[in-house]
Amino acid sequence: MTPMLTELKEAVCKANLELARSGLIILTFGNVSGVDRRRSIVAIKPSGVAYDSLKADDIVLVDFEGNVVEGWLSPSSDTPTHIELYKAFPQIGAVAHAHSPYATMFAQAEREIPCLGTTHADLFHGPVPLTRLLVEAEVVEGYERNTGRVIVERFAGVEPLELPGVLVAGHGPFTWGRTPAEAVETAFVLEHIAKMAFGTMFLDPGRAPLDGPILEKHFRRKHGPEAYYGQKKEKDQ
Amino acid sequence: MTPMLTELKEAVCKANLELARSGLIILTFGNVSGVDRRRSIVAIKPSGVAYDSLKADDIVLVDFEGNVVEGWLSPSSDTPTHIELYKAFPQIGAVAHAHSPYATMFAQAEREIPCLGTTHADLFHGPVPLTRLLVEAEVVEGYERNTGRVIVERFAGVEPLELPGVLVAGHGPFTWGRTPAEAVETAFVLEHIAKMAFGTMFLDPGRAPLDGPILEKHFRRKHGPEAYYGQKKEKDQ
Amino acid sequence: MTPMLTELKEAVCKANLELARSGLIILTFGNVSGVDRRRSIVAIKPSGVAYDSLKADDIVLVDFEGNVVEGWLSPSSDTPTHIELYKAFPQIGAVAHAHSPYATMFAQAEREIPCLGTTHADLFHGPVPLTRLLVEAEVVEGYERNTGRVIVERFAGVEPLELPGVLVAGHGPFTWGRTPAEAVETAFVLEHIAKMAFGTMFLDPGRAPLDGPILEKHFRRKHGPEAYYGQKKEKDQ
Amino acid sequence: MTPMLTELKEAVCKANLELARSGLIILTFGNVSGVDRRRSIVAIKPSGVAYDSLKADDIVLVDFEGNVVEGWLSPSSDTPTHIELYKAFPQIGAVAHAHSPYATMFAQAEREIPCLGTTHADLFHGPVPLTRLLVEAEVVEGYERNTGRVIVERFAGVEPLELPGVLVAGHGPFTWGRTPAEAVETAFVLEHIAKMAFGTMFLDPGRAPLDGPILEKHFRRKHGPEAYYGQKKEKDQ
Repeated sequence: MTPMLTELKEAVCKANLELARSGLIILTFGNVSGVDRRRSIVAIKPSGVAYDSLKADDIVLVDFEGNVVEGWLSPSSDTPTHIELYKAFPQIGAVAHAHSPYATMFAQAEREIPCLGTTHADLFHGPVPLTRLLVEAEVVEGYERNTGRVIVERFAGVEPLELPGVLVAGHGPFTWGRTPAEAVETAFVLEHIAKMAFGTMFLDPGRAPLDGPILEKHFRRKHGPEAYYGQKKEKDQ
Repeated sequence: MTPMLTELKEAVCKANLELARSGLIILTFGNVSGVDRRRSIVAIKPSGVAYDSLKADDIVLVDFEGNVVEGWLSPSSDTPTHIELYKAFPQIGAVAHAHSPYATMFAQAEREIPCLGTTHADLFHGPVPLTRLLVEAEVVEGYERNTGRVIVERFAGVEPLELPGVLVAGHGPFTWGRTPAEAVETAFVLEHIAKMAFGTMFLDPGRAPLDGPILEKHFRRKHGPEAYYGQKKEKDQ
Repeated sequence: MTPMLTELKEAVCKANLELARSGLIILTFGNVSGVDRRRSIVAIKPSGVAYDSLKADDIVLVDFEGNVVEGWLSPSSDTPTHIELYKAFPQIGAVAHAHSPYATMFAQAEREIPCLGTTHADLFHGPVPLTRLLVEAEVVEGYERNTGRVIVERFAGVEPLELPGVLVAGHGPFTWGRTPAEAVETAFVLEHIAKMAFGTMFLDPGRAPLDGPILEKHFRRKHGPEAYYGQKKEKDQ
Repeated sequence: MTPMLTELKEAVCKANLELARSGLIILTFGNVSGVDRRRSIVAIKPSGVAYDSLKADDIVLVDFEGNVVEGWLSPSSDTPTHIELYKAFPQIGAVAHAHSPYATMFAQAEREIPCLGTTHADLFHGPVPLTRLLVEAEVVEGYERNTGRVIVERFAGVEPLELPGVLVAGHGPFTWGRTPAEAVETAFVLEHIAKMAFGTMFLDPGRAPLDGPILEKHFRRKHGPEAYYGQKKEKDQ
């Protein structure tokens, strides 16, 4: 095993533990993966393994066809969904999946999360997208792969790092980023955004989304060439 | 005392502590039991004992008539409910009871929890059932036993491991499983499902339940002969 | 100082810390007292003191006229409210006050909490009562004493141990019991009841309260001569 | 560096950590500053630095023009907002900013928080004010400074220590006080107030705010010359 993959497995393991610690998941219902772009290999959480005993060595390596390359455990049953995202979005380095309550409420209600405030605009450059429901044939055969495909279908013409997550209708959120830590951070902020949107819609059901300029401002002060949030030296790393 | 019952008492004690740690119960309002099918003996939490001092030795053993077989404490006042379930559902090995807030809200509102997403379908093969209210005569005499009976009445023609829990109208949830740990896990997921259904119904009050194929798919990938979630070796144990 | 009062001060201190640990209060917004009936002396939390540094020695002793009998700190500003309750309800031995969110929502909305389930009936033998608002003269002069008086006014003809708490309109809950620990337990369960009633009223706004027999059954299995919940030896202590 | 500024930096660091511990912020989305009035220097959290590694030495010192006077990290991107508040409100010594969920819901819905109970009146002498939305030109150029200016605009004729916080429309709460600890305490109580107002408005959508006398009474028993809440010696310090 090469040192680089050891590092990836450690980052993926750490991000899975962070996802569990954040309170976003219950039992084993969630998973984080990371990708090695040079080798086209995905490092992912094993299926149904309890978080409190998860170690970097348990992380499973699979290729883009879903074959296990290394590891003695079965990979997450959602692995084909992750692979579809890596194949379609070359910009991303990691994917996280949770059933966090507020984001899942929107997914179950088949509603996008409108951008109602600057916390949202800090992370998502527009509403949090929603996929369509899968049709019967897509469920019966290749369900997890097709879950990835309806996400990709929804992102036609969309830059995935400007909208770093999605609600799968009737299911829950998937988020992504350049690193496993970033994908989990986005899952965490998405849950917070969803909760605040939920409450805002109670207080003002007809609330219009935030205006263009403020959405633009908040997203751009954290992302892209004109970003000025955070520490320079961190960005240079 | 035989070693096997010691093991059962330890599993029941551990599951009761897990129930307390999960935040599903307040004070002493909850209980978990397990059954020894060969001897028809139930191991159950003593009544009104604080969780932080509960030890395996405090677990009370009762027979199917409710007589204490071993133990110096009184068994949970809900013991007759548990016994009715063990008598009617030979498939189950453990029962858990909590007053967790969201599941109890549905029980108090006398509403089943519709299957609105895949988190639900992962565990319940349909809506979470609701019992009828007890009539006055059932309350006055044999209240706890009759609570078990209205549950059993509701499950006529239903496989209890496909719908591993119920809402007792005006009271709260009971869940079950093959082991005490499984019954508590189901209580925990049920609360999460109830919270997400609650929010989904706020966002879309007329929301239709999930379609047949996706319900089928999610339940079957975790349960029955075609299950592929989790680790093979765990299932073989 | 007599040993008995030391014991009372320790019980009051412990109950105040338990109230803080339970998450029912924010900052210093809450207090618990206990009474020595033989001497008509109240032991109460000092005003505005942080919970993490509270010791039994800080508990202030006051007589029924509100004069400090012992202690170097000022007693809680709510002391006159507690004293009114001790004078009017000879059955009670302790009082707790919190601004816990769900109970306070009902107090602020000037709504009693209807008995919608057995968790409620386990503790309150009917709806959680609500006081009237104080009129201007009652606020300007003797505000805290008058807060106690509107509670007492509301309990005319009511047995305070059968309804061991109240919502003061526009303010929040007061609870009581035979011991400081019991008053805090009731504050804790009241918050849980309020949260579940809140959610039930969302799911079914016109929900009718629980029937007489089931209310009677649940209250009586925990309270009074026919109680059978909990351990005999505990009750005998 | 003078000892006084070291003390300020320590108070600011401690208050930032307290804000993080209180659960009011997610990730790095929040900041607390304090001001040295003699030198017109602001001590503020560095931008985008994780709370678990924050030390007093990391706190950045800036003057009222926003120039860094001391520190090797970039100051919070919200620094110009803080400076506007210090320039306009000579009474205040510290400012805190969070994206706490319930206060942010009101900010996003563009609703003031009405005074619905005594918990609110203990801290805010009237409704929690709301700013107007910034217009496009204010967003594009000098966004953070203009955020401070719309707050100041809203407080024309208002004593800032009688209403120690504000909701910035579409953004979230800013709070202030005489010390960094006080600004954070207010942020914490504001979130609690917002949550309880939210629930009260569900239970009684047309709820009228609390009457003048009780609002007056509660605010004055904690603030100003006739305050009698808390310990004398603490106030004298």
